[in-house]
Amino acid sequence: MRIGVLGTGMVGQTIGTKLVSVGQEVKMGSRVKGNDKAIAWVQSAGTGAGEGTFADAAQFADEIVINATAGTASIDALSAAGSEHLAGKILVDISNPLDFSAGFPPLLSVCNDDSMGEQIQNAFPDTRVVKSLNTMNAKIMVEPSLVPGSHNAFVAGNDADAKRAVISLLESFGWPPKDIIDLGDITASRGVEMFLPLWLRLYGSFDRGSFNIAVMRG
Amino acid sequence: MRIGVLGTGMVGQTIGTKLVSVGQEVKMGSRVKGNDKAIAWVQSAGTGAGEGTFADAAQFADEIVINATAGTASIDALSAAGSEHLAGKILVDISNPLDFSAGFPPLLSVCNDDSMGEQIQNAFPDTRVVKSLNTMNAKIMVEPSLVPGSHNAFVAGNDADAKRAVISLLESFGWPPKDIIDLGDITASRGVEMFLPLWLRLYGSFDRGSFNIAVMRG
Repeated sequence: MRIGVLGTGMVGQTIGTKLVSVGQEVKMGSRVKGNDKAIAWVQSAGTGAGEGTFADAAQFADEIVINATAGTASIDALSAAGSEHLAGKILVDISNPLDFSAGFPPLLSVCNDDSMGEQIQNAFPDTRVVKSLNTMNAKIMVEPSLVPGSHNAFVAGNDADAKRAVISLLESFGWPPKDIIDLGDITASRGVEMFLPLWLRLYGSFDRGSFNIAVMRG
Repeated sequence: MRIGVLGTGMVGQTIGTKLVSVGQEVKMGSRVKGNDKAIAWVQSAGTGAGEGTFADAAQFADEIVINATAGTASIDALSAAGSEHLAGKILVDISNPLDFSAGFPPLLSVCNDDSMGEQIQNAFPDTRVVKSLNTMNAKIMVEPSLVPGSHNAFVAGNDADAKRAVISLLESFGWPPKDIIDLGDITASRGVEMFLPLWLRLYGSFDRGSFNIAVMRG
């Protein structure tokens, strides 16, 4: 597949590198073509990696675009990508609407009766948004075996076929299908985004991000 | 110990019954003495169980009071209990600020830059508030072995001695100390309360509440 990855930060780079390593062609998109971090990533990721604008990356994708931009910048980035280049495609939304403007810990810029996943789906109604992977750090997203034992990734979205495609993509990252929990429609983005304050406290308690949650059933 | 349990709902009854079964004396408090549910609970819980007003229950406690009222009613209930009866004591706050006024799923009446745990601590500065157990259903709170394997309870509060006392209480319920994670001060209430929307989606996906989360470290 040809996959567009929007965002040049840690999440975009980690996901992009993993996608290339499992045989996908990837174009990393950023505000401008020739972004320093994107160019450095292309050089390190090797064959199959390219870069361009947000619009270049979205247009390049045959089926799947990954939103790895900061949640507070996602609507702008996706608007720059262009609804015409996102229409009919699956958008995997990994973003978290973390607002650091008042320092640490960040607040959520949207929560409770709305979420970034919903705002994106509403802004791009012809795109099938699947919220996933935002509940853990980037290394674990693409290499779940870094955390021993069974632990969980979540998917949420309004389109069952799109969720199946994202589950297949997660399988290619090493996620056993049994460990991927379908939370229902895109409004479940509220739940996974509002998990972030607990994630941040756990990060503070452990002083590292190499953990994930497992939902244990009785 | 003599422990006051504020609230006659499922959480108050389940916690109260467990406390009696492990040898504590318990007074369940509600708005009025002689509440039907409180009387029925006293009859079923047996020796060591009593009931009265919120103030009676708080006054009865020698060290620990449990807030098992609905979060949206907690400040009123604690005000009725009386700051003079709560002063110097530990308040275990199990409440969740769930607002069902717009239907299901409920919203949080406070979140993001504040929490119910913090509001309670601020309203009762002479009481040592420890947020705990609000992240799971009542049966698992008092019988963690209902969920196989290791899974977690959290504590958060400003007073280290108070947290140690609550951890001891949880041990008496069957929680291994290694499974109790200290999240730091009372502002961590934001994290555990904002976990509820994810808990509610998991409840929806599984169609039952008999689950808990385990934090798995890599």
